[in-house]
Amino acid sequence: MSKQLFHHINKYVAITEEEFQTMFPFFELRTLKKKELLVEAGSVCNQNHFVLDGCLHMFFINDKGTERTIQFAIENWWMTDDLAYHNQTVTDFSIQAVENTRLLAITHDKQEQLLKEFPQLEKYFRTIYQISYGAALVKMKYLFGLTKEEIYFHFTTQFPQFAQRVPQYLIASFLGLTPEYVSEIRAKKRS
Amino acid sequence: MSKQLFHHINKYVAITEEEFQTMFPFFELRTLKKKELLVEAGSVCNQNHFVLDGCLHMFFINDKGTERTIQFAIENWWMTDDLAYHNQTVTDFSIQAVENTRLLAITHDKQEQLLKEFPQLEKYFRTIYQISYGAALVKMKYLFGLTKEEIYFHFTTQFPQFAQRVPQYLIASFLGLTPEYVSEIRAKKRS
Repeated sequence: MSKQLFHHINKYVAITEEEFQTMFPFFELRTLKKKELLVEAGSVCNQNHFVLDGCLHMFFINDKGTERTIQFAIENWWMTDDLAYHNQTVTDFSIQAVENTRLLAITHDKQEQLLKEFPQLEKYFRTIYQISYGAALVKMKYLFGLTKEEIYFHFTTQFPQFAQRVPQYLIASFLGLTPEYVSEIRAKKRS
Repeated sequence: MSKQLFHHINKYVAITEEEFQTMFPFFELRTLKKKELLVEAGSVCNQNHFVLDGCLHMFFINDKGTERTIQFAIENWWMTDDLAYHNQTVTDFSIQAVENTRLLAITHDKQEQLLKEFPQLEKYFRTIYQISYGAALVKMKYLFGLTKEEIYFHFTTQFPQFAQRVPQYLIASFLGLTPEYVSEIRAKKRS
């Protein structure tokens, strides 16, 4: 299990098994049942999470009381409200397990300490954030450049395994669509 | 001029003036006239840009031939298509000067070399990307959680100086609104 984070770090920077053994105690293993809440909106955001297996989603509740999903995290993805985590402020987002999930959690203080002791991890996190930010710009391009129907089919074609394992209403929420609209365009495609 | 990047780096990591003097030749000073293109969609994305003064916007042209702005960069902001820059691939985005602009450009190869020679800059870029990614999640929350009218007034209230200096049609484009819609809600507010 710890091997997984070790291999993920080694995709971007070289660390030894001995170094990783010293890093590992900075993390806490958490297991969540499907639908269990990991973070509740309104709490101070002081943890970051690396998913070992399962799936999380981060969402907020809009004025109409509807859940809107902002991001997903599956195996080897990090998830937190990054701005609130950086500023150590209250988050507007909740994080919930979409499936039974195992993850490694690290507090903000411990992550700071980890980065101080192993500065080579700065490159690991820099690379991950660079990719994540770049992907967020691309997502914005799809939201602004495609019709709702195109957004849905682009997403499900681009990430077929993901689209199969995550409930349709969450995919709809992530793409800014209503579940009814998604049912409608899926039915249209089948007919 | 070079002082500006020096001070910006020192907001996040401590570097000496001597170190900065060694870093500075990695960059090239560029000046752009208002409306001049810095990057054209379809080219390989191999430069990153730090704005000294002025303003840039990154945009793509949608199927209807309309420009959609994805991000802005004013003084002390970095701008590139981060995913294409990371992968060294062709970008779908163009970057253009909104005002006369002076910036420091660095190629991908030189940035890699800079980070190798000054690994403490990994923390600087990690922090900047962490904040940028966090802000992108917050933007997504506004796009998904507010009405079009609320998005516009939230943005112009939150960033009044920015809203004053950037043409309305670009702000509309950035917020996923049409210029006609923005004129309409501004007129409604005045009446």
